[in-house]
Amino acid sequence: MSDPITNLSKLCIHTITTKPWPIETAAANFAVKGAKGMTVWRDALNGRNIKATGEMVRSHGLEIVSLCRGGFFPNADPVKRKIAIDDNRRAIEEAHELGTKMIVLVCGSDPTQPLETSRDQIQEGIATIIPDAAAAGIQLAIEPLHPMYADNRSAINTLAQANTMTEVLNSPWVGVAIDVYHLWWDPDLEQEIIRCGKNKALLAFHVCDWKSPTTDFLNDRGLMGEGCIPIKKIRGWVEATGFNGFNEVEIFSTAYWQTDQSIFLDNIITAYKNFT
Amino acid sequence: MSDPITNLSKLCIHTITTKPWPIETAAANFAVKGAKGMTVWRDALNGRNIKATGEMVRSHGLEIVSLCRGGFFPNADPVKRKIAIDDNRRAIEEAHELGTKMIVLVCGSDPTQPLETSRDQIQEGIATIIPDAAAAGIQLAIEPLHPMYADNRSAINTLAQANTMTEVLNSPWVGVAIDVYHLWWDPDLEQEIIRCGKNKALLAFHVCDWKSPTTDFLNDRGLMGEGCIPIKKIRGWVEATGFNGFNEVEIFSTAYWQTDQSIFLDNIITAYKNFT
Repeated sequence: MSDPITNLSKLCIHTITTKPWPIETAAANFAVKGAKGMTVWRDALNGRNIKATGEMVRSHGLEIVSLCRGGFFPNADPVKRKIAIDDNRRAIEEAHELGTKMIVLVCGSDPTQPLETSRDQIQEGIATIIPDAAAAGIQLAIEPLHPMYADNRSAINTLAQANTMTEVLNSPWVGVAIDVYHLWWDPDLEQEIIRCGKNKALLAFHVCDWKSPTTDFLNDRGLMGEGCIPIKKIRGWVEATGFNGFNEVEIFSTAYWQTDQSIFLDNIITAYKNFT
Repeated sequence: MSDPITNLSKLCIHTITTKPWPIETAAANFAVKGAKGMTVWRDALNGRNIKATGEMVRSHGLEIVSLCRGGFFPNADPVKRKIAIDDNRRAIEEAHELGTKMIVLVCGSDPTQPLETSRDQIQEGIATIIPDAAAAGIQLAIEPLHPMYADNRSAINTLAQANTMTEVLNSPWVGVAIDVYHLWWDPDLEQEIIRCGKNKALLAFHVCDWKSPTTDFLNDRGLMGEGCIPIKKIRGWVEATGFNGFNEVEIFSTAYWQTDQSIFLDNIITAYKNFT
């Protein structure tokens, strides 16, 4: 089991968690509450100067932990696969301008073709952009997604698959993002976290909770402590590998987005202290 | 890849697939269309003489492939675990009266306790009822459920887990039900089907499809061919083990239940011939 959370020095919050707020509001409020990190979703940068936005975030004392998200490599249409590669190269440029060292990859899946084909196209896509990532000094974090997203969001659905892919790609620029929401059910989770740590590939750790019942495939995630995920136990496994990065709060919730985001942020801080 | 379906001699349909029909209507209509098997859900037996209902189904030339469902063993409250054991014993009696040789187990999970505890309680629960199953000549088929049901429906979420559990329980009365809806995403599926076959534990094969997008956690399953599951390929793996049982059509669909069930049944037959 992990040590209790005694301060907010490892707290990172994703911009999408408080989606109704512009990034300027989010950065100011996260910082006032004591968070030390922000992961920026690309939609939060729309219509902004990216370099200046990065400087604005840092001016609040927040480290930009990662840019979300690249990926979505697979497509039965090779033209669309090329468009995806171009978009990932743009994401690498954006990450560089923003001043972050990591991009999270939601790898993609095309339901019109076999999963194996999508997996091959993911591996090929990542291999294609590794030189760009290396040139920009940006690490690519493969995020295995819950099997309920295997049809159209990611054909990488277990940590074992992500680990194998990082081993095959064998690049210091490729690693893994572990999100408890996607992986908590996996009977092999502890051993695969150990394997990921041995590979020196554990780049990021995302938290939220699985509500029981959950009513929406995408936007019904819970605050830590509201559901059945053993977050403290999993954080303990992650930290036992030597991981010393942020605990990133990433909650998609139509219900919470409809509430006062200042109160929601207070609840995030409380849930972080007590249930992460 | 499997051989094409050329006749309906292996077609079994679950009563829940045409839920609006009473079992008498379902039996008559399934038989007229050429199906040879029926799996009976316990709710279809409500208020009926079970033995007479079994005879009614067989009088239409339908074999009763299994009774759905036993299971739901885990509970943090030992009194409720005892109630679950009693209910499973009742299911064994019902299966015996009905004249089927198999019960499908949806094993259960309690979100208030760790998954490992739920898994231990499942194993203990099945072990407890094996003597009853043996005495009645009924096989118990562990059905691994999709990881999206890990919180409250089953803590057995991969075929690997089900295989390990059958190996540990090591009884001719315990095996596995493979449902493509729950397992299609698993990168280890082919090898685990081979393992299941070597264990002589592959007892049942359920089909439907995963719609993309899927909009409801429980009741938005698709007809074969409407989604992205490689059903023919998986049937090929199943049959390569020597499995010679029924292909069971099990579709939960609020949308289809609201349509004319005779037309739906015609569509099932067409989908079965072309996409199974």
